[in-house]
Amino acid sequence: MERITVLGAGSWGTALAIVLAENGHDTLLWTHRQDQADEINQKHTNKKYLPHTTLPTNLVATANLAEAAQHAPTIVVAVPTKAIREVCGNLSKLLQEKTLFVHVSKGIEPDTLLRISELMQESLGTDLIKDIVVLSGPSHAEEVVLQHPTTVTAACENPASAEKVQDLFMNGYLRVYTSEDVTGVEIGGALKNVIALAAGITDGLAYGDNAKAALITRGLAEITRLGVKMGGNPFTFAGLTGMGDLIVTCTSVHSRNWRAGNMLGKGMPLEEVLEQMGMVVEGIRTTKAAHQLALKYDVAMPITAALYDVLFSDKTSKEAVDELMIRMKKPEIDEF
Amino acid sequence: MERITVLGAGSWGTALAIVLAENGHDTLLWTHRQDQADEINQKHTNKKYLPHTTLPTNLVATANLAEAAQHAPTIVVAVPTKAIREVCGNLSKLLQEKTLFVHVSKGIEPDTLLRISELMQESLGTDLIKDIVVLSGPSHAEEVVLQHPTTVTAACENPASAEKVQDLFMNGYLRVYTSEDVTGVEIGGALKNVIALAAGITDGLAYGDNAKAALITRGLAEITRLGVKMGGNPFTFAGLTGMGDLIVTCTSVHSRNWRAGNMLGKGMPLEEVLEQMGMVVEGIRTTKAAHQLALKYDVAMPITAALYDVLFSDKTSKEAVDELMIRMKKPEIDEF
Repeated sequence: MERITVLGAGSWGTALAIVLAENGHDTLLWTHRQDQADEINQKHTNKKYLPHTTLPTNLVATANLAEAAQHAPTIVVAVPTKAIREVCGNLSKLLQEKTLFVHVSKGIEPDTLLRISELMQESLGTDLIKDIVVLSGPSHAEEVVLQHPTTVTAACENPASAEKVQDLFMNGYLRVYTSEDVTGVEIGGALKNVIALAAGITDGLAYGDNAKAALITRGLAEITRLGVKMGGNPFTFAGLTGMGDLIVTCTSVHSRNWRAGNMLGKGMPLEEVLEQMGMVVEGIRTTKAAHQLALKYDVAMPITAALYDVLFSDKTSKEAVDELMIRMKKPEIDEF
Repeated sequence: MERITVLGAGSWGTALAIVLAENGHDTLLWTHRQDQADEINQKHTNKKYLPHTTLPTNLVATANLAEAAQHAPTIVVAVPTKAIREVCGNLSKLLQEKTLFVHVSKGIEPDTLLRISELMQESLGTDLIKDIVVLSGPSHAEEVVLQHPTTVTAACENPASAEKVQDLFMNGYLRVYTSEDVTGVEIGGALKNVIALAAGITDGLAYGDNAKAALITRGLAEITRLGVKMGGNPFTFAGLTGMGDLIVTCTSVHSRNWRAGNMLGKGMPLEEVLEQMGMVVEGIRTTKAAHQLALKYDVAMPITAALYDVLFSDKTSKEAVDELMIRMKKPEIDEF
């Protein structure tokens, strides 16, 4: 049994805390909302995020960040990507021992173009970081709490830390593989949200499964081109955190990014889509960052560019998708 | 305008004949059933296979194989995989000029382990073959006849022949890329049906989207391992005819192979599944062939092996899938 802290009681943070508690670890789940911590401790539920799940009684919640920071030598950061900079900034003053960090977030910070582990390194700004491990893969929280078979990858430049995370989470229904390719895992995880938005658009246009399969395939090709140029391993993009996560995100109606794209494809203006969603659509921020990365690394990313024009210029979804489809005929492999 | 023959008036053969006729080519569609030829010529419909489609009036059908063989210097073979040997055997005696063949079939002949183009070469057994081009990709016929955007690849060792096929089929809604990797395209197209059966099984077991995404990802990895060992280009498997076609087949309820797997996953015995399907489930034949290829080329194909045990041994679907999920923990890339 180990002590471990999970920061963030959204659906994925809570699901991972359940896994850890069920694996017998002394797990503390932090949320910034006292009423949510009380609900978890008293009723063993988290109705807003996992309405049908009863939490294990050995899973304890707190709204006290200092308590969370000092509970354990391993901290899982599962807050929304937009909140990471602030939470890590607060956290860094509270750490008392060398800490192993795990993050489960997907995104790239626009303008700084930092990957999540780089952003954490910068915002924690302390020498009390043992390592930062990224945990990623095709994993709807709703299925993990039902103990449906799920596979994810723990990546860290230091293999011992990736294996440590593997040991903490691994059980009969959650299989954890290890990798040393942090860049590849983080780029694949972030950019799949861009392609999910685009896949939602083709579905919103009712273009069908043939077009969507082509888009997902080409999408992975452009993610791979960029990721390899940034130092990622091409095999990573063909694996669980690349192709696997991309498929689950593009083919599930549960994906926020797909849903936002779907509304755009049906002709709804962006402002209205954002209003209807009522929460962050990470893929929109990531599209901006990906577009900047494509320019910086001089990589052709036609789907990202088309989506950027739809979101930040005044191109219609239909114009953008039709242009993508009607690109010059040529050998397929030239596209890779 | 060119003359062109399509052999086989199933849904895909008919859809391709419609594309060719709409592209202005003098297109003759052969079927072995006179009543079907009459329906196409008189009513401009093919109700059994494309119930909601009106065929162009310039699309002509025949039940006379000699007429079909002598109509054009280009013949598209779109008969069921099981019928190719017989149809090509009959055809070879009727050819009068050097002919460019195009095939759109997916499978591997069990025991001989021939790919489709090799099987055609052998069963045609004539020096009147100009080239054999394989046309493949994520392409439900039902969507092509609705003119939904679709992308496919034409592959031939002779690039000029692939480009010829590209020119014949290419139009505003059907985009055709070219490739020289016949082996890669044929192996990807055949083996996706094995993975579609397995994906149907996990869905039948209600294991959810996480498990299915992992299975599809690992499935493509094992197809790629085999295909590369057989001489295919790894990029082909990451393209439209590999990943693209795999996604569309595994995530669509229209796929026969997925449906058969789904019934198996729900616990129906194989004999009953075959009876209910009432038609060929190509993936079952291909699983046998793929298992033989894995042994011949000494490639680890755990999903294929598990499915083989379900189909041809007496392992239950649940046992097989659970064993796949619970393989030893290890670095992910070792699996590639």
